[in-house]
Amino acid sequence: MPTISTRGRQMPPSPIRKLVPYSEEAKQKGVKVYHLNIGQPDIRTPEVALEAVRNTDLKVIEYSHSAGIESYRKKLARYYQGIGIDVDHNDLLVTTGGSEAITFAFMSCLNPGDEVIIPEPFYANYNSFATAAGVKVKPIESYIEDGFALPSINKFEELITDKTKAIIICNPNNPTGYLYSEEEMNSLRDLVLKYDLYLFSDEVYREFCYDGHKHISAMKLEGIENNVVMFDSVSKRYSECGVRIGTLVSKNKEVMSTALKFAQARLSPPTFGQIIAEASLDTPKSYFDEVQQEYIERRNFLVEGLNKIPGVYTPKPKGAFYTVAKLPVDDSDKFCQWILSDFSHKNQTVMMAPASGFYSTPGRGKNEVRIAYVLKKEDLANALEVLEKALEAYPGRTE
Amino acid sequence: MPTISTRGRQMPPSPIRKLVPYSEEAKQKGVKVYHLNIGQPDIRTPEVALEAVRNTDLKVIEYSHSAGIESYRKKLARYYQGIGIDVDHNDLLVTTGGSEAITFAFMSCLNPGDEVIIPEPFYANYNSFATAAGVKVKPIESYIEDGFALPSINKFEELITDKTKAIIICNPNNPTGYLYSEEEMNSLRDLVLKYDLYLFSDEVYREFCYDGHKHISAMKLEGIENNVVMFDSVSKRYSECGVRIGTLVSKNKEVMSTALKFAQARLSPPTFGQIIAEASLDTPKSYFDEVQQEYIERRNFLVEGLNKIPGVYTPKPKGAFYTVAKLPVDDSDKFCQWILSDFSHKNQTVMMAPASGFYSTPGRGKNEVRIAYVLKKEDLANALEVLEKALEAYPGRTE
Repeated sequence: MPTISTRGRQMPPSPIRKLVPYSEEAKQKGVKVYHLNIGQPDIRTPEVALEAVRNTDLKVIEYSHSAGIESYRKKLARYYQGIGIDVDHNDLLVTTGGSEAITFAFMSCLNPGDEVIIPEPFYANYNSFATAAGVKVKPIESYIEDGFALPSINKFEELITDKTKAIIICNPNNPTGYLYSEEEMNSLRDLVLKYDLYLFSDEVYREFCYDGHKHISAMKLEGIENNVVMFDSVSKRYSECGVRIGTLVSKNKEVMSTALKFAQARLSPPTFGQIIAEASLDTPKSYFDEVQQEYIERRNFLVEGLNKIPGVYTPKPKGAFYTVAKLPVDDSDKFCQWILSDFSHKNQTVMMAPASGFYSTPGRGKNEVRIAYVLKKEDLANALEVLEKALEAYPGRTE
Repeated sequence: MPTISTRGRQMPPSPIRKLVPYSEEAKQKGVKVYHLNIGQPDIRTPEVALEAVRNTDLKVIEYSHSAGIESYRKKLARYYQGIGIDVDHNDLLVTTGGSEAITFAFMSCLNPGDEVIIPEPFYANYNSFATAAGVKVKPIESYIEDGFALPSINKFEELITDKTKAIIICNPNNPTGYLYSEEEMNSLRDLVLKYDLYLFSDEVYREFCYDGHKHISAMKLEGIENNVVMFDSVSKRYSECGVRIGTLVSKNKEVMSTALKFAQARLSPPTFGQIIAEASLDTPKSYFDEVQQEYIERRNFLVEGLNKIPGVYTPKPKGAFYTVAKLPVDDSDKFCQWILSDFSHKNQTVMMAPASGFYSTPGRGKNEVRIAYVLKKEDLANALEVLEKALEAYPGRTE
């Protein structure tokens, strides 16, 4: 039997999905599992999008343009212009989910052996895509105590070597929900300019900013137009995770023409996803108002509920729909598995993502979990009750 | 401005798509362009598939399982069983097009610096995916004179080093249309076993075998069950190129569990594509009979027509819907561009794929083109007329 690649073996398991076998086992035992592990909202996809699918009259489902259907790219460019991001459709490439935008950026801008700096905790799959591209992730620590604010620029500078080619931010942040301030974004701009780095900016949660706080897109930072590569996706914006449509955006022509070669190699993004995404651009504002109101209520309810549980602490995030919570446990990987396999309360349990997978510094995140507030308040209430009881019963409780 | 990767720069341009700007220019001048450059059939997608989309009643378009919707995988496994390929749904991973199956196989089975042997001419994007994975392609020559039959096993053995990890075949072949015989498949089996190699077998044209010739799947070769990794796709089988649904298939558990990690990193394949692909499995046999009859007629018409043009030669392929033709020209890259930019006949012209992009040995394929017989006979007739007139007028004609 041929020996398998070490590249493959080094792929980190997904912290969001690695416990799936335990949740499936729990379900087989008849236990209801609340899925707070994954950013899969229960929010309805806009009607205008669903309608577009039902009304398709294609006779042959053809490849689209490798960069995406032109009418979609043009309409999408107008959406960006409408929120003050000055791009036209040639600055966009439609990708198969935000995931592919990340891959294309890594493959187009970085060489094997290059280093990227990412504030941790960070979206776990950055690690996976970096592994696939042979790129090294250098984590820079942010802390739950200050709500996971941007680490000081000095700390970034300490990590920069001649192999450092990019900084990645996710704003608002997955997994922390942190929203970077204008001041933080400006300090990143200065850093990127000083060291001639790419700034990869993952802005898929742009529409999810709360309490009147404003989202500052990296695309709007003056003087680094050629350094910024933005990742975007319709998955969260329109609750369309399954359509697999994202966007790679950059004013850097060389990056875009290189990325197009990778896009041509995989032929085209999914046709139906593009039809849905294009139709979604007509989603009425009232949809977003309702969704935002819903998430604010869920967040408030969850954060308050978590902080009431003895030994638990979570900050109050300003964006996205995640929060990282500190639990009084020895090892959140063990706890998240235990709560699925050995615990239930009123025949219910909770699936959470152990935070260790969002850190690349060994040992960090061991007493933290990521919780996605993607379920309705009633479900969150039940989940909180399960969590409180589970922490009381867990043999590895620390305080 | 940050310097861009050499990895990116080394990505070869797509031979199928690199002339698109010239074809667009021709169209702007009002010239009708016959697209024989790309394997995009004009064949209708089965009604049962289109119906499935129109009837969806999803409220939230969610992520699917990373390995693909279970009901689809189970039904797909039954399809394979029905054609004598002994797999269950755990031996399958649903991918975003056949393209992603290739990427996952490269990433899961090979390390940067490893070598794969591929009979050339070969599907050009193998080169692209190899580049992305840091894998080196070692081409082994096959020749138009013997219809692009499998090169002798001795030739393979001459190329095998301790870095050689896999052989890739595409059967029936893109770009040549060659269908490997049972004898050729058995000799590949022996070779793979002797040197402990992976056999990557791209079988996306399985349903397109003509004149009573039988397709021998690599999955059926005895004794190398753990060596074989199959790529598959619904794109050609059901004329659904745009849905972007493929499959990675292997009995090798370690390969599949590693590939699943790559699948989890990109979350899931497109939901609507999977719905369509699942429904397509109910396509009636009459659909395939009609399609096959249509392709046989087109092939016969095209091959006969090409061989009637002075100085042109093409073999008669037994499968797929491509043929490689030798033309009396100095350089088919120049010719294929010239015919779009400088030539038209009755206000029509033809887009073909220069064969150089399907070879990785420099200089090979310079007087060859790949022609896809994906258009109806009437269009092929016009295209042949254009080609004949163009060859008469082309300044770089060689004989």
